[in-house]
Amino acid sequence: MSHTAPDTTPEPHGLPASDVEVRAMRRALELAARGPAVGDHARVGAVVLSPDGDVLGEGWHRGAGTPHAEVDAMRKVDPARLRGATAVVTLEPCDHVGRTGPCSVALIEAGVARVVYAVDDPGPAAHGGAERLRATGVQVVSGVLADQAEAFLERWLLSVRLGRPWVTVKWAASLDGRAAAADGTSQWITGAAARQHVHEQRAAHDAVLVGTGTALADDPSLTARGDAGEFLADQPLPVVLGDRALPADAALHRHPRGVVTIPGHDLDAALRSLRARGVHSVLVEGGPTVASAFIAAGLADELLVYLAPVLLGGPRVALGDIGVGSIHAARMLRVLSTSSLGPDLLVRARTVPQRPDGVVDGAPTDRSTT
Amino acid sequence: MSHTAPDTTPEPHGLPASDVEVRAMRRALELAARGPAVGDHARVGAVVLSPDGDVLGEGWHRGAGTPHAEVDAMRKVDPARLRGATAVVTLEPCDHVGRTGPCSVALIEAGVARVVYAVDDPGPAAHGGAERLRATGVQVVSGVLADQAEAFLERWLLSVRLGRPWVTVKWAASLDGRAAAADGTSQWITGAAARQHVHEQRAAHDAVLVGTGTALADDPSLTARGDAGEFLADQPLPVVLGDRALPADAALHRHPRGVVTIPGHDLDAALRSLRARGVHSVLVEGGPTVASAFIAAGLADELLVYLAPVLLGGPRVALGDIGVGSIHAARMLRVLSTSSLGPDLLVRARTVPQRPDGVVDGAPTDRSTT
Repeated sequence: MSHTAPDTTPEPHGLPASDVEVRAMRRALELAARGPAVGDHARVGAVVLSPDGDVLGEGWHRGAGTPHAEVDAMRKVDPARLRGATAVVTLEPCDHVGRTGPCSVALIEAGVARVVYAVDDPGPAAHGGAERLRATGVQVVSGVLADQAEAFLERWLLSVRLGRPWVTVKWAASLDGRAAAADGTSQWITGAAARQHVHEQRAAHDAVLVGTGTALADDPSLTARGDAGEFLADQPLPVVLGDRALPADAALHRHPRGVVTIPGHDLDAALRSLRARGVHSVLVEGGPTVASAFIAAGLADELLVYLAPVLLGGPRVALGDIGVGSIHAARMLRVLSTSSLGPDLLVRARTVPQRPDGVVDGAPTDRSTT
Repeated sequence: MSHTAPDTTPEPHGLPASDVEVRAMRRALELAARGPAVGDHARVGAVVLSPDGDVLGEGWHRGAGTPHAEVDAMRKVDPARLRGATAVVTLEPCDHVGRTGPCSVALIEAGVARVVYAVDDPGPAAHGGAERLRATGVQVVSGVLADQAEAFLERWLLSVRLGRPWVTVKWAASLDGRAAAADGTSQWITGAAARQHVHEQRAAHDAVLVGTGTALADDPSLTARGDAGEFLADQPLPVVLGDRALPADAALHRHPRGVVTIPGHDLDAALRSLRARGVHSVLVEGGPTVASAFIAAGLADELLVYLAPVLLGGPRVALGDIGVGSIHAARMLRVLSTSSLGPDLLVRARTVPQRPDGVVDGAPTDRSTT
C-alpha cells in the first residue's frame, strides 16, 4: 500500500475501501455499541489493520474524558506496527484539543498511513480531522458504511447539527386517544410491561422532561427503575419546564441527578440550554400541553405512543391543539414499529418533515370509502 | 350401534362422540363456511355417516328458503342407507315448521338412528329438535366441537339470543384519535388499503348504519365496492339513524338495497327493528356521535379501529363522551388482532362485559411509571 499525493479536497467517496476494510468497519460499529448509550459523547468504534489486513487492535469510546476510539485501539498495538497501518473508525477523527487531544495528530504521529471512516464529524470544533490527515499525506477514505453509522449515531448527529438534543415525545393513551378519564384519573391506563418499557426509555435518554402541570399533579420521581423498583444504571437528568415552583417535598428533589427547572415556555431556548449541559437526547413525558407544544413546534423527532386496550371518551385528550387546521396540514408520521407490551400496543414513529406549503409527499389522495 | 332408551332430559355432554364423529363435525364446520356469510340464516353444515363411520353425504345451508344442512346432506344419500345412519350437524336440528319444515321430523322419518350436533339452537321457535328426536328414540349427542361452532356462529347466536343484531363499530382516526382536522376535513385520514378493508367489512355485515349527521355531511353511498370501484356480491342494507331528512338527491337513494331511515335516537329500538327485518349484523360507521352512543349504551360487540400514521390534534375526536367518568369505569377491550393495512394500523377488538360495580377484572393495579 503506497501513499498517494496529499488530497486536500474533501472527497467523501473518492477512494474505494477494500472488502477487508468494510468488514473492519462493520466490526468497528459493533465495538461502538459497547460505549455508554447516554452522555455527552459520540459512540465510536475503531479497528487498526496491518497493511496485510490483519487486525492489530480494536477500541471504542467509553464516554467523556476517556480516550477516543482510534486512540483506544492504537494503545493496544505495538507502536512499531502502527507505522504504515490503516485505522478504520466509525466517525471522522477529531481535530480539536479537547479533554483528549486531537485524534488526527495522534494518528499522524503514530505513522498511520491510511484512515477509513464512516461519517464526517459534524461538530464545528471537531471537524477538520480528515483535512489535516490528508494534508500530511495520510490516505483518507470516508463514507464507508455511512448509512449504518448515521443511523447508529442519529441522536448525537442531530444534536450536534441542530444545536439541540434529540427529542422523543412519549404519551400513554386509551385507544381513543385519552390520557385520563373525565375526572382526571389515569392510574393506570397502560399495564406493567408498558410502564417498564418507559423506564428503559428513560435510561436510554440523557434527560426526561415534564411540564410543571404534570410535576405538580403527579409528583413523579422520573427515575429509571427496573422490574423490582431498583434503580437502573443510567439515570436521566429530570427537567421541569414552566413557571410554577415545585413544593419543597416534591419527589423530584430526591432524584439522584438533582432536578433542573427551566422557567418559561420557550421550547427552543430550553432545548439549547439542555444541549449546553451536555444533553443529547430528551424524553418528553408530558403532560398533554407539553407534548402538544413540542409537536406543534416541529421539535419532536420520535414518538412513543403507548395505547391501552380501553376506551375513555371525554375531554382529556393525550394531545391537544398541535396547530393543524386542515387535513392537508396533518403531521405525517413514519411508523418504525408496532409492538405488543402485555395487553398494550406501542407505536414507535418518526415525524416526517413537512413541505413549506404544508403538503406532505405520499399523502393519500385516491378514492373514498363513502 | 344400538338405540338407547329415550332420554328426554337435555344432557348437553352426556354421550361421548366417537373420533369418527368428531372428524365429521370438523368437516361439517368446513361445509358450513360454504354458506353465505350474510343474510337471515345460520350457516350450518352436516355430514351423514353410515353405522361403520363411512361418509354417505355432505350438506350445507345456502340461505333462507333453501333446505337446512342436514336435509341437504340426506338428499344426497340413497334413502335405504339413511336407516340407522348418524347425522353430524353443527347446529341442533330445528323443530319448527318454517319455510323448510322441521329437520327433526325429516331425520326421524328417514330412520336416522343417531344425531350428533355442536350447538343448541337458541331460537325459541326452533328449539326442541333434540327433545323430539330423543322422544322418538333417536340417540342424541350435543356439544361436540361446541366452542368452534359457537365462535363460527357468534354473530347469529348473539342476534337470536339478544333479539338484536351483532354490532361492529368502526372508526378511522389519526394516531391521536381524531376523526377530522379542526376545519372538519378528513379525506383521507386512512389510505387505500384501509378503505378497501372497510368495503369488505360492509360486504360481511347485513347492514351499515350511519347517523343523519354523517349522511348529510358526507353524502355516502354505503355500497360495498372492490378495488376498481365495482360492486361486491354482497351489498349491506344502508341504514340512517336520526330525524333529519335526506335530500332527494342523496347518493343513498341510489343504493341497490334502498335506504332504511329510522327516526329518533333509541338505539335499542332501532336494533330491534333491524332484527325484525332479518338483519343479524350491523356495521356502525359513525360519525363520532353515533359511534360514541353505541359504545356508551354497551351495544358495541366488536370494534374496528383504523389508525393512520398522522397527528391532527384539535377538537374533532373520533369518540366523544361514552359515559366514562373515572379510570375505574374505563371500557375494557380485548384486542383480537393488530394488523397493518398499507401505512395504517387496524386494531380489531371485542368489548369486555363490565361488572355491575364498574370494576373490570384484570384491570392493572400495580406500580407506577412516575
